[in-house]
Amino acid sequence: MIRALAFDVFGTVVDWRASVIRELTEFGRRNGATADWPRFADDWRAGYVPAMNRVRNGELPWTRLDDLHRGRLVELLDEAGITVGNTEIDELNRAWHRLDPWPDAVAGLTRLKQRFVITTLSNGNVSLLTNMAKRAGLPWDCVLSAELFGHYKPDREVYLGCAEILDVAPGELMLVAAHPSDLRAARAAGLATAYVHRPLEQGPDRPPQRPDDSEFDVTADDFRDLADQLGV
Amino acid sequence: MIRALAFDVFGTVVDWRASVIRELTEFGRRNGATADWPRFADDWRAGYVPAMNRVRNGELPWTRLDDLHRGRLVELLDEAGITVGNTEIDELNRAWHRLDPWPDAVAGLTRLKQRFVITTLSNGNVSLLTNMAKRAGLPWDCVLSAELFGHYKPDREVYLGCAEILDVAPGELMLVAAHPSDLRAARAAGLATAYVHRPLEQGPDRPPQRPDDSEFDVTADDFRDLADQLGV
Repeated sequence: MIRALAFDVFGTVVDWRASVIRELTEFGRRNGATADWPRFADDWRAGYVPAMNRVRNGELPWTRLDDLHRGRLVELLDEAGITVGNTEIDELNRAWHRLDPWPDAVAGLTRLKQRFVITTLSNGNVSLLTNMAKRAGLPWDCVLSAELFGHYKPDREVYLGCAEILDVAPGELMLVAAHPSDLRAARAAGLATAYVHRPLEQGPDRPPQRPDDSEFDVTADDFRDLADQLGV
Repeated sequence: MIRALAFDVFGTVVDWRASVIRELTEFGRRNGATADWPRFADDWRAGYVPAMNRVRNGELPWTRLDDLHRGRLVELLDEAGITVGNTEIDELNRAWHRLDPWPDAVAGLTRLKQRFVITTLSNGNVSLLTNMAKRAGLPWDCVLSAELFGHYKPDREVYLGCAEILDVAPGELMLVAAHPSDLRAARAAGLATAYVHRPLEQGPDRPPQRPDDSEFDVTADDFRDLADQLGV
């Protein structure tokens, strides 16, 4: 019996790519800067895994995602020859706090919340996730993050820590994510799994491969379909 | 400038005493047990500070409030000569997850949320606070707890940890509480403070003394008055 749903956020709940491109475009307009903003967004996001790995292998102490994002942003602005002040960099870095939800997300979460405890389970820090939810109207019951466990996903401490803090057994907790690697790690820790297909996450030209329907406990087209399949 | 409000919960947001008496009365009816339930509720609550102090002085390892509550409950049932099974004890112990808000709480929080990040900052564990909010409709932006910091209030780690995780300066965070001791500890850690008067917290016969209006940054009659005074 599932009692709680933990949601991956970037890509699963919010459309990070279109939102960051929008923020970069506005930044460019404000500062008279031009660049290939879609590519800039992709490069910014691509810096995320190697930066987390520097934390994971002990090269960096625990670092919140906001600070990992900022480090990569400074490099990318430098490479693009764009010079702005620290206040403007901080403001742009908070683009990740202002991501728009996929069109089905708020309605789907609102339905799912009637039956289950719904929480974030993201590598984003608590303040990022809290600010995002406030702006986007995401109706979380609570905001849980890798930051609380001192480990980034896919470390098993995050999945097990989430179950423990919610006071449910791992098998009573379902991870909802658009990324098979996240789901596989959750399953290895004993969680139930729901894959949600987000064909536009990487932009229109890079659709993800949809896993076989048998691989995860649920495979859904979006959060409305997930609510239907979970009988809400 | 205040950016976030952190709320003490037991007594400040919810009427623990009337709710626990209601739960005990229902428990008595279900199990054919009688006792002085108001006094039982007061004794149960009174066990909370000495139990936390056993954690604070290292006699006990970190223990979530649910487990501190349960330990005292077992003692009190024993003293009252009431014998029930573990399932019934667990169910009764979760009375603390089912506390009713003061009549102004949901409306006041909903107003305050328009302007500020609003979070719990309670000695209750995250699952207790999450279940309570879900049942009572408390519109928190996030659920923070002593559990996340491994310290109980009034240890300063809790107040400073709350500011850090919200990514605000201590002076940008205001503790809202009905208890001067909690507010004094928050102030010593650099937080702003708002006292809310809850004359019925300890029952009709034990009204708390209202502190002088000059002691805290704000002194309010309830959450609506707090919203008025904060200009929301």
